[in-house]
Amino acid sequence: MRSMSSDATTVDGNRLWRELDALAQFSEAPAPAVTRVVFSDVDRRAREYVKALCREALLEIREDAVGNTFARWPGTDPVLPAVATGSHIDAIPNAGIFDGTVGVLGAIEAFRALRRSGFDPRRSLELIVFTSEEPTRFGVGCLGSRLMCSGLDPDITDNMKDRDGRALAEIRADAGFTGPLSSVALKKDRYAAFVELHIEQGPILETRGLDIGVVTAIAAPASLRVHIEGEGGHAGAVLMPDRRDAFLAAAEVALAVEAAARGTGSIDSVGTVGVCEVFPGAINSVPSQATLGVDVRDIEGARRDAALAAIRKACEEIAARRRVSIVIETINADAPCQCAPAIIEAIAAAAAARGLRAASLISRAYHDSLFMSRVAPTGMIFIPCRGGVSHRPDEYASPDAIARGVAVLADTLAALASG
Amino acid sequence: MRSMSSDATTVDGNRLWRELDALAQFSEAPAPAVTRVVFSDVDRRAREYVKALCREALLEIREDAVGNTFARWPGTDPVLPAVATGSHIDAIPNAGIFDGTVGVLGAIEAFRALRRSGFDPRRSLELIVFTSEEPTRFGVGCLGSRLMCSGLDPDITDNMKDRDGRALAEIRADAGFTGPLSSVALKKDRYAAFVELHIEQGPILETRGLDIGVVTAIAAPASLRVHIEGEGGHAGAVLMPDRRDAFLAAAEVALAVEAAARGTGSIDSVGTVGVCEVFPGAINSVPSQATLGVDVRDIEGARRDAALAAIRKACEEIAARRRVSIVIETINADAPCQCAPAIIEAIAAAAAARGLRAASLISRAYHDSLFMSRVAPTGMIFIPCRGGVSHRPDEYASPDAIARGVAVLADTLAALASG
Repeated sequence: MRSMSSDATTVDGNRLWRELDALAQFSEAPAPAVTRVVFSDVDRRAREYVKALCREALLEIREDAVGNTFARWPGTDPVLPAVATGSHIDAIPNAGIFDGTVGVLGAIEAFRALRRSGFDPRRSLELIVFTSEEPTRFGVGCLGSRLMCSGLDPDITDNMKDRDGRALAEIRADAGFTGPLSSVALKKDRYAAFVELHIEQGPILETRGLDIGVVTAIAAPASLRVHIEGEGGHAGAVLMPDRRDAFLAAAEVALAVEAAARGTGSIDSVGTVGVCEVFPGAINSVPSQATLGVDVRDIEGARRDAALAAIRKACEEIAARRRVSIVIETINADAPCQCAPAIIEAIAAAAAARGLRAASLISRAYHDSLFMSRVAPTGMIFIPCRGGVSHRPDEYASPDAIARGVAVLADTLAALASG
Repeated sequence: MRSMSSDATTVDGNRLWRELDALAQFSEAPAPAVTRVVFSDVDRRAREYVKALCREALLEIREDAVGNTFARWPGTDPVLPAVATGSHIDAIPNAGIFDGTVGVLGAIEAFRALRRSGFDPRRSLELIVFTSEEPTRFGVGCLGSRLMCSGLDPDITDNMKDRDGRALAEIRADAGFTGPLSSVALKKDRYAAFVELHIEQGPILETRGLDIGVVTAIAAPASLRVHIEGEGGHAGAVLMPDRRDAFLAAAEVALAVEAAARGTGSIDSVGTVGVCEVFPGAINSVPSQATLGVDVRDIEGARRDAALAAIRKACEEIAARRRVSIVIETINADAPCQCAPAIIEAIAAAAAARGLRAASLISRAYHDSLFMSRVAPTGMIFIPCRGGVSHRPDEYASPDAIARGVAVLADTLAALASG
């Protein structure tokens, strides 16, 4: 086994760039936009592409009942808990090329680079491609990693419906993933460490001229579905004082979410209404129902919960004044994650050994790492993305930035797999 | 030819009730809701059902290039301008059974009742079933009657797209309606009169215990599409002060529409946002685009235009403050209609001869009559509907109320066709 000299491991950034581009072709939206919803036709074809790359890299592939994919490089001491890395390849509607994919294709290149350098891991190395990190189809983010970490009830989860009313059980079976969802839960001490490489999805690294972000904590998200029911009617005939317009109530709820997030006094509080559905949705009909998808985050759980309480209070006032019913459904309200000191140190050491400019930061977006932290010491490596932009077609990370991130990932994995 | 004794004409209300129920089965929504979008499969089958009733009633059927259907009972003096009646059978999503259909099936029963009574019209009588009174598919209400009255440019209209991006030209051809749209325009003096029977879609007749509303004017609608463009991004990563959220701007525009309608000082002003589409529409993505469908109506054109000006001003303020672009597209802004005194008198006389309780009122909803008034003396007969409710599954008019309306329609048509 060679020593950990970082100079020996050379990342092929050009190849990785071509693979990122090739993966982006599996999309329902025209380039440069990427839309790749879990278990859609393009998602299935993208999975095949990634698995082909894994096979070419001599990794052993296993898939679980929800389609989480594990690609293993067996270590010389294979009974030891493995060191894992990974991310996701699904993409929200009209997203970009790099979110998630950098951590998946980048991990494969990290493994290849380590192998090229003659490295032979003591602990097994594993790439995990998580199913449905994005909540697009079922409303729940990090579906695969939540199930791995026993964060979801398997039966309830298998009955979750997509917008077409189809259950996860049926959809995953169609995609070839069968067996009980309870089998997805990870056995204790399966992993000695988990490290995820990801674009920052924020502006800090770029603004401060940094190469690498060493993530110390991941912000805690809460997702709500707000159901509003008023009374419909003809847009010409129902007089204004008689109305119980569900959409106008929804408009006020959305503004209340904004006010609650801005009202905490911290820049780290954010609140978003990204989904609004209006029923019946005709220009000449007073809306009788509206549904909002609400996302509230903070790095401090208590401050986030205070914002949620402010939203609930506003909903009560709006419901009473507009004579509508407002029901708030909590989809998830997760605890924040503190990254493991040993992994933070390993990442920082790898960046320093390569002479890269690194700094500690928090992740405002949440990731599968948030859930992996419940079952393994976890860390994240961030690389800069242009303008801090993500979840948009113009999301961009440079080939050099990606290659630097993959090099730090490779060295970090090598260090952890040797320990 | 027999005289105009109203006693001689007896409406078969039971048969008409069964036919309304049969027509309601052609629906994409489960009963009691009706969804019947123009040129959908259910609309096509509903058209066949109505035409079969017309053929059974010995009416001569003609269809124009946009699918307006004319069913003619030739008069003894067929060169004279005809007397027409009619309404529509399309229905917005999740609507009720009676809107439009009472005026179509009721007209067929009026013709049958007149024929049973031995009546022989001097002027030809015509039923017109107008295509797409509802704006659901193409965003423009009264598509068929607007084209008849040269209220739309045929080429622009034929290129209008539905939500799936399909042009009217293609869709109507698929439904079997070909030929240039310019051929839909009516020849001058084709009709001596037009009378439409309709449910009130408001509470006045029921509240005041009246049987028949004699419509004197139809409110002037304006329809806008408001396009808002901001900047998207990740719901966790983009900080609140940096956001240019298109949906939050849309929420404020919707509240501004409400405020403008309530701010005119008249109960006759109404403003509605019945459509809101958010892009990309993911719970963890800041909306980059939003589109609203806005409907503003009044019986006074100037007052309505003042409300529109207030909405435009609010949009300017919102766009500047939230750093988004707001583009207002006017879909239509029609002039109000005054009904023809001769037809108002004929309806009032028919109601009086039957001993029915009638009163003059205005139509807050707009109808194909609004456009027919541009090419023919026009009037409308309203019947009460429960709670003033319309465009909802619980829309209801009683069999007796409908039968009374049809009797007044029959007598009015007989009087006009004899003149």
